[in-house]
Amino acid sequence: MDTSLSPVPIPVVIDCDPGVDDAMAILLALGSPEIELRAITTVCGNVPLAGCTANALRILELAGRTDIPVHAGADAPLIGAPIYGRFHGPTGLGGLSLPAPSTTAQPEHAVEKLASELRRAVEAGKGLTICALGPMTNLALLLKLHPDLKSGIDRVVSMGGAFRSPGNRSLTSEFNVLADPHAARIVYEAGIACVALPLDVTHQAMTTPERCALFAGGAPGSPLAAAHALLERWARHDPARYGGDGGPMHDPLVTAFLVAPSLFHTAPAGIFVETDSPLCYGQTVADWYGRSGTALIATKVDADGFYRLLAERIARLERMTA
Amino acid sequence: MDTSLSPVPIPVVIDCDPGVDDAMAILLALGSPEIELRAITTVCGNVPLAGCTANALRILELAGRTDIPVHAGADAPLIGAPIYGRFHGPTGLGGLSLPAPSTTAQPEHAVEKLASELRRAVEAGKGLTICALGPMTNLALLLKLHPDLKSGIDRVVSMGGAFRSPGNRSLTSEFNVLADPHAARIVYEAGIACVALPLDVTHQAMTTPERCALFAGGAPGSPLAAAHALLERWARHDPARYGGDGGPMHDPLVTAFLVAPSLFHTAPAGIFVETDSPLCYGQTVADWYGRSGTALIATKVDADGFYRLLAERIARLERMTA
Amino acid sequence: MDTSLSPVPIPVVIDCDPGVDDAMAILLALGSPEIELRAITTVCGNVPLAGCTANALRILELAGRTDIPVHAGADAPLIGAPIYGRFHGPTGLGGLSLPAPSTTAQPEHAVEKLASELRRAVEAGKGLTICALGPMTNLALLLKLHPDLKSGIDRVVSMGGAFRSPGNRSLTSEFNVLADPHAARIVYEAGIACVALPLDVTHQAMTTPERCALFAGGAPGSPLAAAHALLERWARHDPARYGGDGGPMHDPLVTAFLVAPSLFHTAPAGIFVETDSPLCYGQTVADWYGRSGTALIATKVDADGFYRLLAERIARLERMTA
Amino acid sequence: MDTSLSPVPIPVVIDCDPGVDDAMAILLALGSPEIELRAITTVCGNVPLAGCTANALRILELAGRTDIPVHAGADAPLIGAPIYGRFHGPTGLGGLSLPAPSTTAQPEHAVEKLASELRRAVEAGKGLTICALGPMTNLALLLKLHPDLKSGIDRVVSMGGAFRSPGNRSLTSEFNVLADPHAARIVYEAGIACVALPLDVTHQAMTTPERCALFAGGAPGSPLAAAHALLERWARHDPARYGGDGGPMHDPLVTAFLVAPSLFHTAPAGIFVETDSPLCYGQTVADWYGRSGTALIATKVDADGFYRLLAERIARLERMTA
Repeated sequence: MDTSLSPVPIPVVIDCDPGVDDAMAILLALGSPEIELRAITTVCGNVPLAGCTANALRILELAGRTDIPVHAGADAPLIGAPIYGRFHGPTGLGGLSLPAPSTTAQPEHAVEKLASELRRAVEAGKGLTICALGPMTNLALLLKLHPDLKSGIDRVVSMGGAFRSPGNRSLTSEFNVLADPHAARIVYEAGIACVALPLDVTHQAMTTPERCALFAGGAPGSPLAAAHALLERWARHDPARYGGDGGPMHDPLVTAFLVAPSLFHTAPAGIFVETDSPLCYGQTVADWYGRSGTALIATKVDADGFYRLLAERIARLERMTA
Repeated sequence: MDTSLSPVPIPVVIDCDPGVDDAMAILLALGSPEIELRAITTVCGNVPLAGCTANALRILELAGRTDIPVHAGADAPLIGAPIYGRFHGPTGLGGLSLPAPSTTAQPEHAVEKLASELRRAVEAGKGLTICALGPMTNLALLLKLHPDLKSGIDRVVSMGGAFRSPGNRSLTSEFNVLADPHAARIVYEAGIACVALPLDVTHQAMTTPERCALFAGGAPGSPLAAAHALLERWARHDPARYGGDGGPMHDPLVTAFLVAPSLFHTAPAGIFVETDSPLCYGQTVADWYGRSGTALIATKVDADGFYRLLAERIARLERMTA
Repeated sequence: MDTSLSPVPIPVVIDCDPGVDDAMAILLALGSPEIELRAITTVCGNVPLAGCTANALRILELAGRTDIPVHAGADAPLIGAPIYGRFHGPTGLGGLSLPAPSTTAQPEHAVEKLASELRRAVEAGKGLTICALGPMTNLALLLKLHPDLKSGIDRVVSMGGAFRSPGNRSLTSEFNVLADPHAARIVYEAGIACVALPLDVTHQAMTTPERCALFAGGAPGSPLAAAHALLERWARHDPARYGGDGGPMHDPLVTAFLVAPSLFHTAPAGIFVETDSPLCYGQTVADWYGRSGTALIATKVDADGFYRLLAERIARLERMTA
Repeated sequence: MDTSLSPVPIPVVIDCDPGVDDAMAILLALGSPEIELRAITTVCGNVPLAGCTANALRILELAGRTDIPVHAGADAPLIGAPIYGRFHGPTGLGGLSLPAPSTTAQPEHAVEKLASELRRAVEAGKGLTICALGPMTNLALLLKLHPDLKSGIDRVVSMGGAFRSPGNRSLTSEFNVLADPHAARIVYEAGIACVALPLDVTHQAMTTPERCALFAGGAPGSPLAAAHALLERWARHDPARYGGDGGPMHDPLVTAFLVAPSLFHTAPAGIFVETDSPLCYGQTVADWYGRSGTALIATKVDADGFYRLLAERIARLERMTA
């Protein structure tokens, strides 16, 4: 056995609100032997909770991985009414029309599933990595309900925030944090290891036509074909806004970071979240001097390397499911 | 059986942070046939969580009601570090020295116990009354984790807030709300029926020596003797502050309200909680025009009637446990 | 000369936004030998600045005191857009129809007039009393432009704020403070002697029909007749709101306080103003323990005594102008 | 006369808190025929007001331009206590030891001088340019006292703010704005034309040794020699912080912008200032979509071109004064 190719995989739960880019992040995880995806938990974000949960099931069915349980979580942020991203059309999966899922979510709440995976991690002596691809409501509830289970968390790797970039949902704020800033604050104040992939870095990873072309050639109905379809529409998403042919691909940077951290530059920092000011509501603020906090913030990504990895792993998933 | 004396009792869970006045509230509930106390859940507040939980056990042992389960809950507010009331000395029970408890709390988390009692209430078609005697952290977590169980709540009757009175912990804020204003905001924004007993009314219920005397005559080691000891010290608590011989008796107004609502005047109102301003942090604001919200705010109490009820019910508990 | 009846009068500038009750406050001052009214300065508030200035001129013409100069000041608060009280109809003088003024305001800005009166006070060794009947914008500009002239201020006696009462313009805030909370904060943080007459006390001074009747019998076109007309309409102002036949008479309490302080109870306190929170914007917060600040807050007024004084002094003005 | 070399100069008042970089900005203005410097007004900032005023006088004496009047202004921000930059040592002029000034400031307040220059500008039909090199307190007072004089302002060109850069005085905020955020908000909400030179661009203009060398060769006691001395110390200011040999040269970018705008890239934007949140207090927020506001924000500077200009103009001043 070639252990260099088969290291002990990292145990992972993906907490998400799919979402086109959540879908890509999940497909990358499923195609990567470095990751053992134990569960997908869902949270309201891009679309209302039921839609996010259905989309998570659809993606697992597409990938032939209905063995992975899906658990629905919070249907609203801690404080105030939900805001929905609606970046990806009414279904949350852009123009991709996948059939209604034939599988269903588990009855256990997302937070309880996260808690039981953390208990398992504590017992096994190997921390769980939580990928946070949406608002952090489930994670905040987990930390407040089960503070003793923090020791089971290896790290929280999240897409969210904007430090030197302007926001994408308000002048100052990125959607995932804006949608539940109190939850993000709870996570960043919890003293746990965090890696943040903010807009500063996701806006370096645009879906140009050249990068889209890397995903061509999948069989109809395959993950690669679905990824190609998602990306093609994404590439045309908002040329006026991003000054080029493509749009930013946010969430798969999170699972790419698990698999190939060398694609990224990071800086240690403390992260604070504005919860009180109407002007800056949901803004993330970094203490770059690193005197506080326990976070790494990604500042740079090798975008071509990232797209090659993403295409390769989804193609690999193709072969696994064929 | 004389059903006029034994109406179907109200199912109740007391969520508390004992606390001298929490102890009095629990004893009043235990001595009242109108109340079926299903569980006590604890939250950090007057003292750290472990102390609150131990005190809840001590009180049930004192009353001979170790059949009632105690469940520990949140050990910190949703946002920020805990503040402790410390109004009642280091143990939280004033000068009363009760032995360490010989019973223990249940393993299930307070929030899960509340959820299972609410499920039971939904099935039985009879809503649960939750008495909130401390910071509302457990209730907020419950509402965010299980929004579908709101229908099992008959009402939340709480001690907390200050409307026309100044605060007792900051210029504007009462301790229970100040200790977790985000939790209070979640509860008051949840659309559930609430009754608030604020400082405006608890400061009408001072423990004068005359009122203390109503509790005399209990056998050593009995609830009445303990109540007398607690009140005697309370009566001397802070004459300079309250302009008289006694201190305000906050929490037992909550259980008194369940048993004898006619002792109180209330006004319908919406309740808002300040979470953002340093100056007014934790302040409660009433919309007295009642255009919003689902709350009743107590504005007046028959203080003598209240103390007579309290003494009578604790004496009754005396006879029950004898 | 009977000096007991003619003490050295207090030098006063009235800064105001007339307004029915400003008009009454000015008439009371003009009818009182204890007050030497040196100028009236105006600020936007009840109506836009030009209307307030015109109303000040109208009132002086009515009283035959066109020797007193009127100086227009700020037409907007320090921060944000003006809000107008509009409590007193479109003209700001209720239903009273006084002719357009035939006099005009002085060219010098209100703030510069206040500064020159303060310089005069410093030189004379006798401090100036400033009556603040509207938003405190002019006073804040004065204090920031001429901090060295603080020594010329004897005290600022103002109508404004709400401590134990709810607000009259938002749930928490009284109009004068809400209309420029930053200005009020500057004044209360300036370390100068202040007396505040808040809603708590003005709502004790309702214009009942009996009190209105005290103003009957003035000759047509006289100040007393005008006062009677103003009060009669005021008395019918908002019975639903104030639970009686009259409305509260705010501003003349300020000039009454100068003439007859014994009509009032006051308590020493520090005053803080909320400028940052949307919920509590413009709220005044008292530190009743008096550890900070340099204010007296009126807590009680002898309302009958006040109305008798008001009627007597306006009748006296009647005789002076006849 | 060669009018291409002598266009009609721009009338300018410099409002400042010198400050090493304020000194450089003033020297650049004095050496530039494109600028007619009508007055210098001072505000507390880098050091207390009296120190700033003395430094302004010292710089004019150094340059032999004691014909230009200096007017002292605000000694504290609108709200709260002053914070002092203290970036430039106790005197505010780094290590440069200039003698105590032999001239004195004018008696008229800075705000009144600005007002009279604006009246002159309105009459002349040629707007005044105001250079704001410190906290904007004087300008805010001017705008609130004399809103009618806005029409005399051609534009306000300021050093201040940080948009994509972190702050230099708090995590989010640049010193000049942090020192009086309410004032900055008043200026940016006034509907007047503004050009902002934020840290984003001043941090592109580092005082490297090579750039310092451009200032060599001045006669002892000359402006060029003083500039060289100031820059040499500045160049060693904080290598650890700025990752190189020099420090950022903030304020002279403002006067350079008047003389050579082509050295800069700018983008139209609205500017908002955070005044309410402790975390982001004093932060500037841009609306880059330019839907609101009337500002240009500099995003890029030709740093070598800037230093050449600065050296050339100070050398020119040398010749003028020689």
